[in-house]
Amino acid sequence: MLDDVRVVLVEPSHPGNIGGAARAMKTMGIHDLALVRPRRFPDPQADWRASQATDVLDAATVSSNLEDVIADCGLVIGTSTRERRIPWPTQAAAEFAAELARDGSRGRPVAILFGREVSGLTNEELQRCNLHLVIPANPAYPSLNLAMAVQVVCYELYKAAELGETNVRTGWDRPYATREELEGFFVHLEEVLRAVDFYDPKAPRQAMVRLRRLFERVRADETEVGMLRGVLTHIERAIEDQ
Amino acid sequence: MLDDVRVVLVEPSHPGNIGGAARAMKTMGIHDLALVRPRRFPDPQADWRASQATDVLDAATVSSNLEDVIADCGLVIGTSTRERRIPWPTQAAAEFAAELARDGSRGRPVAILFGREVSGLTNEELQRCNLHLVIPANPAYPSLNLAMAVQVVCYELYKAAELGETNVRTGWDRPYATREELEGFFVHLEEVLRAVDFYDPKAPRQAMVRLRRLFERVRADETEVGMLRGVLTHIERAIEDQ
Repeated sequence: MLDDVRVVLVEPSHPGNIGGAARAMKTMGIHDLALVRPRRFPDPQADWRASQATDVLDAATVSSNLEDVIADCGLVIGTSTRERRIPWPTQAAAEFAAELARDGSRGRPVAILFGREVSGLTNEELQRCNLHLVIPANPAYPSLNLAMAVQVVCYELYKAAELGETNVRTGWDRPYATREELEGFFVHLEEVLRAVDFYDPKAPRQAMVRLRRLFERVRADETEVGMLRGVLTHIERAIEDQ
Repeated sequence: MLDDVRVVLVEPSHPGNIGGAARAMKTMGIHDLALVRPRRFPDPQADWRASQATDVLDAATVSSNLEDVIADCGLVIGTSTRERRIPWPTQAAAEFAAELARDGSRGRPVAILFGREVSGLTNEELQRCNLHLVIPANPAYPSLNLAMAVQVVCYELYKAAELGETNVRTGWDRPYATREELEGFFVHLEEVLRAVDFYDPKAPRQAMVRLRRLFERVRADETEVGMLRGVLTHIERAIEDQ
């Protein structure tokens, strides 16, 4: 699906934003960049902001009109923050990404249009779109930088395409301690607390319940429980040795 | 919840990224920016990239060390892309945002640390974090620009805070311990471990890092940290009394 996504920047003014958009795309596995009447391109500013994504810039197409860029596309999506006079079908970025991941691109490029830094897309351009995409944002200041908007939309597409419901794996290096090991630790802990006279005789259970809750919710691994047992053993020896 | 989020940039090199981060924050309703040893700030590049978010820059704090910036925080979250030798509890940005929206900040600032443009956060900095946050990205080029990373994380926080499905609240009865309280506990713990001769002289740091990781990820509340300090004090007295 990501291979079919084409990011289209319409009349970007600042070459830095073109480079920033290229980098943003590549971090999310998207490589097809089309530029419509960029004010300055190529440009050293674009290369600098692209960092390791100059390959995306090098492969970008430059065109003098939008129609050519979207002619072969199966879906054309316009990004927009402003309200339009005639309401258009509108989706939040995450919602569209989920739908695209589910339904696929059906073998045709999917163009996502990003407008000018100051004025966005024109009404005519927005009316060439199947639907409009919005990035949820602070109503008092919803004005994302152009490359930032590309980053957020590509991020949502990447998440939907590559991760679906699954999330990052933590990659822990040890199994959880067994219940038996954990209960053994609690017994040992209670002995040590008694030996150091920790308990408030008026409310002896309260402290132990709070400590248990803490060591329950941390879901300790077997190495950690072994280490905690080691600490308790050292404390006992230090008391006896004196 | 968004009012309690503090974005912390650790040693940013490029003032443009500071401005870009400020703008990204404001578009997502987040305003508390802290800078640790910025190479150049204030700077016209920062103002230019901030666009209409110069108010966030103007209110930013500048500090010479990270400890001061996070001392009052209830949660400290480190952003990271690299694998670490000792795995730390890790969540994807969306997952953490959903959890924070559900559980709340419990009245303490939540610091989200973003590292240097080239090298990220150091191991020491990452070990001062309750958990690590990752932005799902193209494994072949996961290197988001610093301000872009701020944009994506703030976007997820905004979505979760403002749009999220309301879920059950955990309804905890105490605020998180502050970072300062937690660091005080670690110092105390290390003293006691030394007093009971716990350390393996061949690998003294290894054990402490694992113990730190355990007590970072449990996100202890202030009563729990107070109780743990009480246990440590009782152990010290028991050793001396003998």
